[in-house]
Amino acid sequence: MMMNEQISNYIISASDAESMAESKGLTVPQLLPSLVKSAQRLARPPISNFRVGAVGLASDGRIFFGGNIEFPGLPLHHSIHAEQFLITNLAIHGGGPKLLYMAVSAAPCGHCRQFLQELRGVSDTQIVITDQPQENPNYNPVSSILPNPFGPLDLLDQEMPLILEKHDNQLTIKDQPFISENGNLSNGYTELLEKNEEKLKNKALEAARGSHAPYSRCPSGVALMDCEGNVYKGSYMESAAYNPSMMPVQAALVAYMVSGGGGYERIVAAVMVEKEAAMVRQEDTARLLLNNVSPKCELRVVLCI
Amino acid sequence: MMMNEQISNYIISASDAESMAESKGLTVPQLLPSLVKSAQRLARPPISNFRVGAVGLASDGRIFFGGNIEFPGLPLHHSIHAEQFLITNLAIHGGGPKLLYMAVSAAPCGHCRQFLQELRGVSDTQIVITDQPQENPNYNPVSSILPNPFGPLDLLDQEMPLILEKHDNQLTIKDQPFISENGNLSNGYTELLEKNEEKLKNKALEAARGSHAPYSRCPSGVALMDCEGNVYKGSYMESAAYNPSMMPVQAALVAYMVSGGGGYERIVAAVMVEKEAAMVRQEDTARLLLNNVSPKCELRVVLCI
Ligand SMILES: [Zn+2]
Ligand SMILES: [Zn+2]
Repeated sequence: MMMNEQISNYIISASDAESMAESKGLTVPQLLPSLVKSAQRLARPPISNFRVGAVGLASDGRIFFGGNIEFPGLPLHHSIHAEQFLITNLAIHGGGPKLLYMAVSAAPCGHCRQFLQELRGVSDTQIVITDQPQENPNYNPVSSILPNPFGPLDLLDQEMPLILEKHDNQLTIKDQPFISENGNLSNGYTELLEKNEEKLKNKALEAARGSHAPYSRCPSGVALMDCEGNVYKGSYMESAAYNPSMMPVQAALVAYMVSGGGGYERIVAAVMVEKEAAMVRQEDTARLLLNNVSPKCELRVVLCI
Repeated sequence: MMMNEQISNYIISASDAESMAESKGLTVPQLLPSLVKSAQRLARPPISNFRVGAVGLASDGRIFFGGNIEFPGLPLHHSIHAEQFLITNLAIHGGGPKLLYMAVSAAPCGHCRQFLQELRGVSDTQIVITDQPQENPNYNPVSSILPNPFGPLDLLDQEMPLILEKHDNQLTIKDQPFISENGNLSNGYTELLEKNEEKLKNKALEAARGSHAPYSRCPSGVALMDCEGNVYKGSYMESAAYNPSMMPVQAALVAYMVSGGGGYERIVAAVMVEKEAAMVRQEDTARLLLNNVSPKCELRVVLCI
């Protein structure tokens, strides 16, 4: 694989995907399994050292990558699975493509099979597992690995948007001071934050508006700023089964990684938008995760109604 | 169902189970679906208001109940599913019985199908879903709802104990003062805590020794004390897929509920045992959950090696 053909380590353009496949005499779905090893290299699993890679072909022809991410020092529910990373990557670069084909390095766990249910029509998405005993593993529909599923359509009206579909939660920032413990950043990035404050708030609000929270009706979003002033946003994505949900700070960390971001310690400021007195509140847990990966990052919370 | 036949709302003895079934002209497995509604009544789901019930028949003839538990004000990964409650209930009242049959009110989510993989031989456990369209839903093996699973045997030696099997993690409490923010409880239960301090520490250590943490090798346990000085312990139970793991504080809350405990606010003190500088650390998240359900409860942490 020529890496310079890629848009980034996490996406391949439709035309590059086609020429890569053509040069090997393959269709693009047939190409996917050969890319799984590259996806595994993007994983960051310091607890398990078990690298999982997931590669997906979207309906617009682009190929998206995902790897598993683990966070030492916290409970394991903070872990982001390769399949969740891939879906988040797709959601970030949206425009509404569907996930048609998917190749993964190991049998997806039940948590991921559940999270995938938030994609409309996922039962027909074709999946291949590359570590299986047979020499040429086959594609099978997702419905074959999670028969009789519990999912969004057990709880929501048919017309409610799902993940990868357009969300526009009506949220307004409360007229309030920018909440902070001490007024300025103790990490030396106060000036950079001041310059980017409006952008961070707007991106976090945008992320909250785009979040998928039809079960709790508690949307939220996070924007992260790195030490160069670049901003990355992540939307909360809920699962009908609750626990497999992706927190907004996890999604924002995926956005950071996908954009080529290096170590987490380069993240110096974060803004979260969530509802006041919400049934599902992210703030304390986001603080825990951010403090763990980037102790000098300061999180500010903006409440909305 | 005559409620006075039950040991508690959460367990039915083997002899009571048999006579209940006999009086209806049923086998005990045939009786299980009729008990699902009772299990649903034990649920505490203030976010979804969606009550899930799970009833299991163990190899020693006893019937165990579980309901889903949700915690408003926190991310949804704190939720305990009915199936997880049932497994925890079985683990608490151990002695090594297997789970042979299981009736659940709704199709288990993928998260639960994954958590169930931590039981040896679960692929043969028979499960029936009572809300299905057909009039007399049938038992089917768990393998039929999670084909081609990812599970413990993908990562562990065959002889490593799984959930419901005897664990004896070799842990010793570090010689250290009993960690506390202020030396005594600000909630007025200092005397009761002093009386029960050794018991709480021992129960939390017992729970940590009994925890199932073969993936991270970071066992942990929690003991809770209510306002009458009763003590409830919970062991950490890990999933091969990480995220579906049960935190020790969740397990201890299940122990509290199973023992007939009322509101969470009656919990006034907690001790956690975990490893120093562990890759998986529970303390901060346990504090978050306890502070949420019982603001006056003080958590003390005892480190072990
Ligand atoms: Zn997974
Ligand atoms: Zn479940």
